[in-house]
Amino acid sequence: MDSKQFREAAKQLVDYVCDYLDNIRDRPVLPSVEPFYLEKQLPDSAPEDGEPWESVFNDIEKLIMPGMTHWHSPRFHAYFPTANSYPSILADILTGALGCIGFTWIASPACTELEMSMMDWLGKMLNLPEEFLFSSRGNGGGVIQGTASEATLVTMLGARSQALAKLASSCSSNQSIPLDKLVAYCSTQSHSSVERAGLLAAITIRALETDENLSLRGETLEKAIKEDKAKGLIPFLAVATLGTTNSCAFDNIVEIGEICQKEDIWLHIDAAYAGSAFICPEYRHYLNGVEKADSFNMNPHKWMLINFDCSALWLKNRHLVANAFNVDPVYLKHDKQGQIPDYRHLQIPLGRRFRSLKMWFVLRLYGVKGLQEYIRKHVRLAHEFEAMLKTDSRFEIEQPVVLGLVTFRLKGSDELNEKYSKAINDRKQIHITPSRINGRYTLRFAVCARTTEQDDIKFAWNEFQTVASQILKENEQTTK
Amino acid sequence: MDSKQFREAAKQLVDYVCDYLDNIRDRPVLPSVEPFYLEKQLPDSAPEDGEPWESVFNDIEKLIMPGMTHWHSPRFHAYFPTANSYPSILADILTGALGCIGFTWIASPACTELEMSMMDWLGKMLNLPEEFLFSSRGNGGGVIQGTASEATLVTMLGARSQALAKLASSCSSNQSIPLDKLVAYCSTQSHSSVERAGLLAAITIRALETDENLSLRGETLEKAIKEDKAKGLIPFLAVATLGTTNSCAFDNIVEIGEICQKEDIWLHIDAAYAGSAFICPEYRHYLNGVEKADSFNMNPHKWMLINFDCSALWLKNRHLVANAFNVDPVYLKHDKQGQIPDYRHLQIPLGRRFRSLKMWFVLRLYGVKGLQEYIRKHVRLAHEFEAMLKTDSRFEIEQPVVLGLVTFRLKGSDELNEKYSKAINDRKQIHITPSRINGRYTLRFAVCARTTEQDDIKFAWNEFQTVASQILKENEQTTK
Repeated sequence: MDSKQFREAAKQLVDYVCDYLDNIRDRPVLPSVEPFYLEKQLPDSAPEDGEPWESVFNDIEKLIMPGMTHWHSPRFHAYFPTANSYPSILADILTGALGCIGFTWIASPACTELEMSMMDWLGKMLNLPEEFLFSSRGNGGGVIQGTASEATLVTMLGARSQALAKLASSCSSNQSIPLDKLVAYCSTQSHSSVERAGLLAAITIRALETDENLSLRGETLEKAIKEDKAKGLIPFLAVATLGTTNSCAFDNIVEIGEICQKEDIWLHIDAAYAGSAFICPEYRHYLNGVEKADSFNMNPHKWMLINFDCSALWLKNRHLVANAFNVDPVYLKHDKQGQIPDYRHLQIPLGRRFRSLKMWFVLRLYGVKGLQEYIRKHVRLAHEFEAMLKTDSRFEIEQPVVLGLVTFRLKGSDELNEKYSKAINDRKQIHITPSRINGRYTLRFAVCARTTEQDDIKFAWNEFQTVASQILKENEQTTK
Repeated sequence: MDSKQFREAAKQLVDYVCDYLDNIRDRPVLPSVEPFYLEKQLPDSAPEDGEPWESVFNDIEKLIMPGMTHWHSPRFHAYFPTANSYPSILADILTGALGCIGFTWIASPACTELEMSMMDWLGKMLNLPEEFLFSSRGNGGGVIQGTASEATLVTMLGARSQALAKLASSCSSNQSIPLDKLVAYCSTQSHSSVERAGLLAAITIRALETDENLSLRGETLEKAIKEDKAKGLIPFLAVATLGTTNSCAFDNIVEIGEICQKEDIWLHIDAAYAGSAFICPEYRHYLNGVEKADSFNMNPHKWMLINFDCSALWLKNRHLVANAFNVDPVYLKHDKQGQIPDYRHLQIPLGRRFRSLKMWFVLRLYGVKGLQEYIRKHVRLAHEFEAMLKTDSRFEIEQPVVLGLVTFRLKGSDELNEKYSKAINDRKQIHITPSRINGRYTLRFAVCARTTEQDDIKFAWNEFQTVASQILKENEQTTK
């Protein structure tokens, strides 16, 4: 395919994706295929000769679309939002064409420098303490990671390396410190990726109990640290969450931060979903306490219209992570080393795309106000759904609605709610995913798509009511 | 930005990137900026109000281009090739618009299933043993990772988990096995990411000496294993490389595979660059021995025209990796679990883009023959450059040219060659990166861009000769 053919094909595809997104409500949000639906329709092997573009293009609708869960349907209410915007898709066209791999400054100065500036821009939008920004000309700065899982892992490895270095310098003997003495903390509500990072980094993770609001408190952490120290363990890291996946609960980072500072423990804050909301002054108070943290992470690829992957991680001292990762072959050295960061030291992979172009396009084309409006629309819609639930006594709301997530149940057993959730998804008109909160099977309704409007909330509510009537009737008949 | 504005902007940008790639020879391959060039020109913070598309579009040429190292210039000969093709950029437009996060089958059946089929297609193109493919309906299968670094880390964690499980089952006591007893092997020529994976996974890595061809041999590995076992260590993994970064050397995987089987050690093969060449029957013999490996990795995003990121990893027993990573929250469960793989178990992050679309577009639009031709063109051009070097007695070729990489030196000291390499890059007409081979500072000339042609090789050779004359003259004058 040469540039002439590409110009034509790309324009055809641009029209196709616009039509797809404009008319996405016409498609059921969930597909009706069974496992291995695609294998049956695809050839066993790649073609020997190149095929014409039209064949490939036609197969999108024929083979791919029937197997899609439409994440950007306004009727998708599962998990958390995933970003998708036109400015971001534009930036990715440019990223693809430039195709640079920005592991060092010299590998493309623009790639490194735009990322530094964009992480500063976003840090300022969030009103992060100056120490987290490159503009402070200190040790701080931000880096784009692929996912919050990676951000947690990178942070854990930095903290682990720092803890081992401290221990080594305080030990007179040459004895090696076994990793199994180290312990990190999160809460029972933390994302599964924290437990996973512990598995990978060979670190013990203790998931601490939360209070009645599903919030991890300082005294709980303090007690755990005391217990572990008494056992001869070495606490070195706490991961606090702002906006948990289960229920959008907030750990008390003011209290936790104080304990971490007192105990000289690394505090990492995971605000993967909720972090985007902190660009609105009325939600910024949830971030109070971040000044006591060592690292902070949020995902613009969730709720800030920057397409996956773009997970923003800020570090107060980026050198602590760089030191943990430091490997320096001659083929990666360059003249300006040390004058400006080389991002390869701040991530697990070596290679990296020019992802800050997406941030630049989205921040400029929407502006801060445009992004704030978008966040506020989602929160408003979530409250509208909450208000609908309150009009129907068959439902109970599980946790207070703070941002764009509503957790609720049909009054009744876990079994009933499980059946209910399945019935909703089986109709494929809307899509939700469940959770377990305080031991109870709970439904989660997240406002997800960029184009979700009031009518879509009404549509979903109608589904919930209709299916509730069916399920409760069936349940009544079974009980009889 | 709505779909109407996007249609227009995208078409404008498509034309821009075509013009950029069509006329890329007009730009110096390396930029002339100093660190912080961009910060000085960008506003301190994001705009409050959204800006018009034209402002952003105009800034691409004004602010970004002056800071670009043009990786897809036919005059870029640094590192290794990075893929860039029109079919791949097309696929990314679709990936962006669909915007699904395919961590489980239900999160988008098409995303999981197309990846399974594409990994099988590519596995067949490479003539991988049937056990590595999903179509065998056994334990094997392929997964797209972000980078070879991630593939190595994932594999190391799988192997570590398997080793610990074996030890636990053979120990009668409840004693925990300290990680520092485990040892993995690579060679002194392995990529820095192997050492790095060891740091992350808290595993000791021994880099073994190679033979005169920079190839790791079976007897070297066997000797190391014997030594380590005698010290009470537990060898569990060997990472062999096909096509090293330094010199495109090949470890002897037939010999290594035999030792690994005898010693019950996981063998991982990293063919990040060279792997793409194995789709040509004349190079497939380098892969003989893969049948003894447990995992095999190559990067279509290097030399197979599939844009970054797309690193292909095949496992003979994918469950060994899945078991190492297994964390199973209720919000990720679904009905069809167990019937078909959930890719989240085979990677470090949770989220993942619909990357197999790129493979599908590229494999179909080029066809196997088209991709073979592309590989052969690069190898032919490398040999043409080798032939040019041989005509000039001032140069010596360091290692035999096998694929698209030529390693060579100016006859003389390391200092001379370092000065030479710097002078070449300072002129910004071509770009190369150095290496250290057998302790000597060596130049690497890689054929990289999709559009590199014979005239570009002649252009580069002219640069090398011109600068050699200058440097040797300067050197002579200094010596006098």
